[in-house]
Amino acid sequence: MRSAVVGLGLDRVVEPAGVLPQAAWRLDPDSALRSDEVALRVRRLNLDAASYRQLADEHAGNGRAIREAVLGIIRSRGKMHNPVTGSGGMLLGTVEEVGPDSVLGLVRGQSVVTLVSLTLTPLRIDDALQNWDGTGEQVPCEGRAILFGRSIAAVLPADLPEAIALSVFDVCGAPALVDRVVRATDARSVCVLGAAGKSGSLSLAAARRAGATRLIGLVRTDSEAGSLRAAGLADEVVVADARDPLAVSAAVGEPVQVSVVCVDVSGCEHGAILATAAGGTVIFFSMATSFAGAALGAEGLAADVRMLVGNGYTPGHADLALDLYRSSPGVAQLFTARGHA
Amino acid sequence: MRSAVVGLGLDRVVEPAGVLPQAAWRLDPDSALRSDEVALRVRRLNLDAASYRQLADEHAGNGRAIREAVLGIIRSRGKMHNPVTGSGGMLLGTVEEVGPDSVLGLVRGQSVVTLVSLTLTPLRIDDALQNWDGTGEQVPCEGRAILFGRSIAAVLPADLPEAIALSVFDVCGAPALVDRVVRATDARSVCVLGAAGKSGSLSLAAARRAGATRLIGLVRTDSEAGSLRAAGLADEVVVADARDPLAVSAAVGEPVQVSVVCVDVSGCEHGAILATAAGGTVIFFSMATSFAGAALGAEGLAADVRMLVGNGYTPGHADLALDLYRSSPGVAQLFTARGHA
Repeated sequence: MRSAVVGLGLDRVVEPAGVLPQAAWRLDPDSALRSDEVALRVRRLNLDAASYRQLADEHAGNGRAIREAVLGIIRSRGKMHNPVTGSGGMLLGTVEEVGPDSVLGLVRGQSVVTLVSLTLTPLRIDDALQNWDGTGEQVPCEGRAILFGRSIAAVLPADLPEAIALSVFDVCGAPALVDRVVRATDARSVCVLGAAGKSGSLSLAAARRAGATRLIGLVRTDSEAGSLRAAGLADEVVVADARDPLAVSAAVGEPVQVSVVCVDVSGCEHGAILATAAGGTVIFFSMATSFAGAALGAEGLAADVRMLVGNGYTPGHADLALDLYRSSPGVAQLFTARGHA
Repeated sequence: MRSAVVGLGLDRVVEPAGVLPQAAWRLDPDSALRSDEVALRVRRLNLDAASYRQLADEHAGNGRAIREAVLGIIRSRGKMHNPVTGSGGMLLGTVEEVGPDSVLGLVRGQSVVTLVSLTLTPLRIDDALQNWDGTGEQVPCEGRAILFGRSIAAVLPADLPEAIALSVFDVCGAPALVDRVVRATDARSVCVLGAAGKSGSLSLAAARRAGATRLIGLVRTDSEAGSLRAAGLADEVVVADARDPLAVSAAVGEPVQVSVVCVDVSGCEHGAILATAAGGTVIFFSMATSFAGAALGAEGLAADVRMLVGNGYTPGHADLALDLYRSSPGVAQLFTARGHA
């Protein structure tokens, strides 16, 4: 049975013993490369939105304090794994060393983005994050990261700025799963909560391409609504606080077959469930999702909906997301508006 | 749009305003019955397994302290909603008063079990839990509970002891969803983690009836393995700590098409994911499931698995569970062995 567990980075786990790197408290980013690993020279981190928001809230938006907090987490855990949100993000770097038994197909000097979470990627920072002011999810830095035998990574496309590519890859699991669910269930009506964000806008584009004919984009503010309308990705743009289930239900109107939660704050489970028709599907992508809130909420509402944990991995997800980005000008508009250009 | 939100108990929410009862910090169990509500005289609570385990751990198994903790939660929140686990359980009682506009079809004097979580059921305890010694998940008591317009409840069957019926209804969402997933995906191989428990044994029985031909029951101890083998519900009984992903993977061997997590401790996500074949489904029923652990774990393992939040509601779930209980002698054996007879 070794085959199921090789290449998972088990010998990079420092504590506790016996768990996978994602569940570990601390990883070892320093020791010599294993034969199936790849070492990257890190150039940029892309923090998970829920993680960055939590850190920004905790430190009242003070960039210096946020920077120290990120540095402290990486130093103590050997990875950027926010202990409060449980989430990480991903990184961009240059291939520095390729173990002789690596099967990832990477070549020294290539610019790549990790498609596995920072919560399981051994990481060491070498420049004390001195070139980052602590504001925003993208963190320019110098450091070292390790890809395990089975860690997936994508080579940066030549036609997109690095920051854009990083953002697209960061959320590429969302459009891929939306595509799969909409096609598999032949859904026509889809509502995306948090539709003006990165995963939200790509999810709208994916649902459109997969055949949805009633596409609702739910956003928090009139300003976001304006941007989303201008982007032309949704048939209806509605404004509501996603944490207010009654407001969500009223804004969406006739329940949809598929709802997609891309809002990076907690408490959005009930609104999404109420907005979904019996027999429909709720896809939770936000890392701020509460498992119990979803499970008990649906039960309490006697809601016969299927609820999916947004798996960040679907085969072909990176290429699909890039393709949607390139072919949907509205998505690019929204990414640019969010400052990721 | 009122139709989507009436009957949800919104006017029983004390704080914070505007959320659904499940998300509320405090409910009002005392005020007069609304026209669409039903009042129950409570006779017994069935605490969620994860909730009871947390309380027992926190109070080192001291029954008196556990009792005071449960009482304190109900007094401060107006419901039995464990603030640590976020879970509740359900209750058994006698119909005391039926509002003129109730559509639940209940009649005064009937013995019923709530099929919505205690986390959203207004509850007042009138006997200070004096007849409960604080040990075990079932809590005999005197009190008052409210069913909202849309809260579902099941009338107790005449042929089963109350404690058994309560236990069966408590977990009836699990076999119903297993039945649905196994049939929909035509799955042949199914692994249940925590297979000797209530939801686990019913899930095994459901998978068998739905057509599974390779049924693996994973349990923690040799003693549980003995009971499960004697019950005859699984084709293979294996022993492993569900929190140890490598041990789970080794014990299960060839990955299965559907895995079902019924273990009421945290940290079982990765083992279940590793035990599931590409294209397969993981159903998380444990309230101790970590959303981020599941989402990022699958991504980190590049595991193309579908992950479902175990919705406690599926139409017909109560009848299906009762039917499985009555027709599977092995399930009854295991329930009895766990002290719920």
